[in-house]
Amino acid sequence: MKETTKIPYKIYLEESEMPKQWYNVRADMKNKPAPLLNPATHQPMTFEDLRPVFCDELVKQELDDTTAYFDIPQEIRDFYKMYRPSPLVRAYCLEEKLQTPAKIYYKFEGNNTSGSHKLNSAIAQAYYAKQQGLKGVTTETGAGQWGTALSMACSYFDLDCKVYMVKVSYEQKPFRREVMRTYGASVTPSPSETTEVGKRILAAHPGTTGSLGCAISEAVETALGMDGYRYVLGSVLSQVLVHQTVIGLESKIAMDKYGIKPDVIIGCAGGGSNLGGLISPFMGEKLRGEADYQFIAVEPASCPSLTRGKYAYDFCDTGMVCPLAKMYTLGSGFIPSANHAGGLRYHGMSSILSQLYDDGLMEARSVEQTEVFRAAEQFARVEGILPAPESSHAIKVAIDEALKCKETGEEKTILFGLTGTGYFDMVAYEKFHNGEMTDYIPTDADLQVGFDGLPQM
Amino acid sequence: MKETTKIPYKIYLEESEMPKQWYNVRADMKNKPAPLLNPATHQPMTFEDLRPVFCDELVKQELDDTTAYFDIPQEIRDFYKMYRPSPLVRAYCLEEKLQTPAKIYYKFEGNNTSGSHKLNSAIAQAYYAKQQGLKGVTTETGAGQWGTALSMACSYFDLDCKVYMVKVSYEQKPFRREVMRTYGASVTPSPSETTEVGKRILAAHPGTTGSLGCAISEAVETALGMDGYRYVLGSVLSQVLVHQTVIGLESKIAMDKYGIKPDVIIGCAGGGSNLGGLISPFMGEKLRGEADYQFIAVEPASCPSLTRGKYAYDFCDTGMVCPLAKMYTLGSGFIPSANHAGGLRYHGMSSILSQLYDDGLMEARSVEQTEVFRAAEQFARVEGILPAPESSHAIKVAIDEALKCKETGEEKTILFGLTGTGYFDMVAYEKFHNGEMTDYIPTDADLQVGFDGLPQM
Repeated sequence: MKETTKIPYKIYLEESEMPKQWYNVRADMKNKPAPLLNPATHQPMTFEDLRPVFCDELVKQELDDTTAYFDIPQEIRDFYKMYRPSPLVRAYCLEEKLQTPAKIYYKFEGNNTSGSHKLNSAIAQAYYAKQQGLKGVTTETGAGQWGTALSMACSYFDLDCKVYMVKVSYEQKPFRREVMRTYGASVTPSPSETTEVGKRILAAHPGTTGSLGCAISEAVETALGMDGYRYVLGSVLSQVLVHQTVIGLESKIAMDKYGIKPDVIIGCAGGGSNLGGLISPFMGEKLRGEADYQFIAVEPASCPSLTRGKYAYDFCDTGMVCPLAKMYTLGSGFIPSANHAGGLRYHGMSSILSQLYDDGLMEARSVEQTEVFRAAEQFARVEGILPAPESSHAIKVAIDEALKCKETGEEKTILFGLTGTGYFDMVAYEKFHNGEMTDYIPTDADLQVGFDGLPQM
Repeated sequence: MKETTKIPYKIYLEESEMPKQWYNVRADMKNKPAPLLNPATHQPMTFEDLRPVFCDELVKQELDDTTAYFDIPQEIRDFYKMYRPSPLVRAYCLEEKLQTPAKIYYKFEGNNTSGSHKLNSAIAQAYYAKQQGLKGVTTETGAGQWGTALSMACSYFDLDCKVYMVKVSYEQKPFRREVMRTYGASVTPSPSETTEVGKRILAAHPGTTGSLGCAISEAVETALGMDGYRYVLGSVLSQVLVHQTVIGLESKIAMDKYGIKPDVIIGCAGGGSNLGGLISPFMGEKLRGEADYQFIAVEPASCPSLTRGKYAYDFCDTGMVCPLAKMYTLGSGFIPSANHAGGLRYHGMSSILSQLYDDGLMEARSVEQTEVFRAAEQFARVEGILPAPESSHAIKVAIDEALKCKETGEEKTILFGLTGTGYFDMVAYEKFHNGEMTDYIPTDADLQVGFDGLPQM
């Protein structure tokens, strides 16, 4: 399709054009994602199984693979208006720098205090908790983006928010912690003495700096043990992908408005919430045979769940308290290296995206972190925005694709997700500037351990 | 005026509606700001006096108090499009929280990587340097916002950028430093061995952690000593206020579009660049008798140049190398306390704003930092945005005014400038959360020292 109108640097939708429903791509999938299994019985999780842990409405969304659209409640739409619509940016300056005939667009989700797209689901989850009359929610956070987003959402709805923050991050990222405290959240370094599992771990490993798996276990235990509390999660789950479709829906509306059709859509992939949210509406068209797109998931070479993982049932958490999900996974015992893209250090992948990948509807690439930071710096210098290390994985591949177009002369239209800003990641940038950043690629022996005793389905 | 249309949460102008000219309020002032004086001769600075230090075009803008509008060059307008128009936000949530009949708007300048409005002038100054064929520019930075903005601007135009960063900030704010390095700037802790004045100061005070005054002196010496370099400054100067009028012009266009007329306009005031930029177009109407507005400058009680200063000629820098300016000042020897709003720790005030204040066209209030942080936190929790300590001075007074309206029942329309975000100020927030923040009000003896030998005009 030809561009018929001069495209502005940034396309902002009017409030009246913002999506009023989230899209559930599972409804259009012929091969549905495999169901979550109860870790004790290996039977599919039911509404009753899940409701002690998650809010009722969120359990419904989690289990519903047939309804194509969920209404976005008015209160959530009002909150979205405080920081959305997010801009769809035409990267004119990057295009010129690369001297590429490609047209590059990015959907920028970093213009809010949480610094990422995480807020899109945090506010939804907080809303349903409030609607259910709950007092508060618990969660874990590693790098801190999800914890920050949830703190903001809970503050807005006057809900208590208890965040278990991996101890090493709690100590190394005091600023993230203070942002959460500004929004009234209580932040506990994990493992802690506030839970049985925390005490047990501390007794066994007195000097431990914690892990995401342990923090999840503490957050779940706390939610289960307190009246009027539930546990919430910022990625991986299908409900989260549904909420994040606001990213893709806005992108599509903005592009349609100007007659733009992307050829390639690129996103970074950790648990899959951003990538799934960005591509869902486009994938829906592909699944329904209405249009075709190339989708590329980008993951760190140090944590390559799609490109080197196994498609199998596995635990979602290293503590093995959560349901089993069928997904591309490196094994719940996989310990990712200290890659600076904290949001991509996850052993598994959304079961929706895993199924789409397995069906050949989406590609995946892995990239090393020094080349990611080179791309990040190149991008920052021409486009102004200082990107998060996670988002920079998508930038790296978008630049690769644009340079391919330069060779072939193709005028492809590239859309990528710029999920957030790197203001709290300057330690990583400093290492990069000082030439102290290294790359790490796991050996085959490091991968795919710990599947014994899991269901083979 | 009545609101005729439903006002959105955020008003974004179209690119075609963005200002094409900056406004120079001096053209409409009956009492012009007093001229800069040569510190040696006490005669008004001429074009020839200033051009070794500043770019030619910027000297012209500095000295021109009759031309009402300056064209914004296309290249600068293109750069503005990468992060502007900035949103004019209706603070619906804050209004509801305060239960006030007042209508509160804020112009948010924090949605760019520099995190503040500083970029508006940085890109202009870098552009004129490039146009003049220069190789690079030098500057000083304290807290780092200006240095970051200038680094971004120089990176865009491929200019060398040498930043002298006050040593204590260089060491305590490594993240700001790394952002500047990401944009390719060289950042030197000041005082340094790279300049004569730096060596002299280091010899006399071996353990000194530096000061803004010293960093200015080093930056000026470096610019004067290198072929193809000039010095640039981020506030106080009239040229900077002119560039910053893009803030007020956009605000006015957005408000006019929806038939909104502000009654009260509030901004924080350090050197005056943000406040001057915000109020100029409205002040112009007031000066021409076309409309009336109440203007309020907000400054820290610890550095009260307008509310407790003297209107007199003084040095702009503590190193006493810059021209003399007539302004409200605490004396160039005044040492501000370690208030956390680094951008407001300046002994003087823009000569334009000083004259307007002296003519009774603008009010000023001083506020203490603990109440400022209380307002900041209250704002963050309902409006989402984590404000910079500087900006929070304006928030504090906007809330005060809105609460007054609650008492009187008046439905005033309040506009304030939200100049930036506080992501790099979490040390200050942490102190506030921990109850360790103190207030400081200087005694009369602390103020107004060092005027001996200065011209009395």
